[in-house]
Amino acid sequence: MPDNFTLAHQLAHRTYRAFRPEPLPEATINTLFEVARWTATSSAMQASSILNITDPNLKAQIAQICNQSYVAKAPLLLIFIVDQYRNNAITNDIGHPIETAGLPSRFFQAFTDACITAQNVVNAAESMGLGTCYLGSILNDIPQLVQALKLPQLTFPVVGLMVGLPDQDPGQRPRMDKSLRIFDNTYTVFDDYAQAIADYDVICEAYYRQRDPKIETPTFSGQLVKRLSAANPRRELILDFLRAQGFSLPERADD
Amino acid sequence: MPDNFTLAHQLAHRTYRAFRPEPLPEATINTLFEVARWTATSSAMQASSILNITDPNLKAQIAQICNQSYVAKAPLLLIFIVDQYRNNAITNDIGHPIETAGLPSRFFQAFTDACITAQNVVNAAESMGLGTCYLGSILNDIPQLVQALKLPQLTFPVVGLMVGLPDQDPGQRPRMDKSLRIFDNTYTVFDDYAQAIADYDVICEAYYRQRDPKIETPTFSGQLVKRLSAANPRRELILDFLRAQGFSLPERADD
Repeated sequence: MPDNFTLAHQLAHRTYRAFRPEPLPEATINTLFEVARWTATSSAMQASSILNITDPNLKAQIAQICNQSYVAKAPLLLIFIVDQYRNNAITNDIGHPIETAGLPSRFFQAFTDACITAQNVVNAAESMGLGTCYLGSILNDIPQLVQALKLPQLTFPVVGLMVGLPDQDPGQRPRMDKSLRIFDNTYTVFDDYAQAIADYDVICEAYYRQRDPKIETPTFSGQLVKRLSAANPRRELILDFLRAQGFSLPERADD
Repeated sequence: MPDNFTLAHQLAHRTYRAFRPEPLPEATINTLFEVARWTATSSAMQASSILNITDPNLKAQIAQICNQSYVAKAPLLLIFIVDQYRNNAITNDIGHPIETAGLPSRFFQAFTDACITAQNVVNAAESMGLGTCYLGSILNDIPQLVQALKLPQLTFPVVGLMVGLPDQDPGQRPRMDKSLRIFDNTYTVFDDYAQAIADYDVICEAYYRQRDPKIETPTFSGQLVKRLSAANPRRELILDFLRAQGFSLPERADD
């Protein structure tokens, strides 16, 4: 299989949640931001932004929203956001207001831009020997986050990211086989997913039991049942929060 | 500034739309898929999948949906999708149906997973000297794409990606300054965006005029007005298409 410096890091990817406390050098942070800036962007519109959370009080508040205390200790804590505010403001301020930056297609373009920027930063960080951890949990309380970060209309939080020098050695969590996730041409539906996932369940069980012999739910399918059963009703209100941020998501197309 | 093999590729990122016609070696494609498999994933749920479009007729149909004829010639054409179908089916087939895989939070988790997987593949491809081009335009006609790719309920197209050996030498399109896109702690609103974007407009004008002396709209702000004015009503129906794919996006939280 082809191999190079980048691939080696990518194939060894793992998530780190504990970091050495020292802040990252300014030059390292600037490099991550340069990489972010050069990320591919839909129609060159650059409709995403990054908030670099340096204020310890704000870090603590975000940790509380995430319900993950380690977030407060992240050496570098970034929040990637949809940003159609800037482009909308540019058209206004140059005297050509357009008023389409809040349409659904614009939201999804910008959401995609924000995500791929985050992953580009992850790859850059890993290439420099740093560890990373995505934080989907910033979406636990969107209105609180919007207020804390002073996010204007036509912006929206997408994902958080912790970056730092690893201070732990987590294993590489197994992944399901390619045959379950990558298909030729059209989507492949399996006859029996219990059977299709059985081998992966065995692999996961061995991995998790080695890490914690007392683990109650070591299989992928068991963990899946648990995760899909966990309810956070506030996270299901995302469309309301999107509308509150000025995105015109119609209730029905013919409204 | 720190530099290494990965960063050098990232900082030189550009989009390629013309590729040498020969197919990519099997080993290269497999490496891209291995990288995809090891991408970070929300709660380890791996709720995204990839369709590898090898059928020339299907490529041609997707090119027509994208309204970009070069898509039909992509040596490697991948479609990244939200996939909650698989996890939902696993819980059903092991006898523990959960029925939450279609909730809004699950859709956005999977959408984020799909995007970061795509960017991980982009970085892998670029590390091997390949060129890439994202295709947001696959969303021009979601129902047609869903039918062509036989996407089941609880799946949804996110973004397309062309990969191949470059057969052109496009310039590196300038990006706006970091100060406009990366902020400390809270969102920075500028007093006057016409002024804030003025320097970048000058940079873009020089770049685009050098590529095409007759270009009509060489500034970023001018292109922005044009792009935000372009309407594709079908792309604004995304919520309807999401509901048609089984995602339970309430019209109002209290419905």
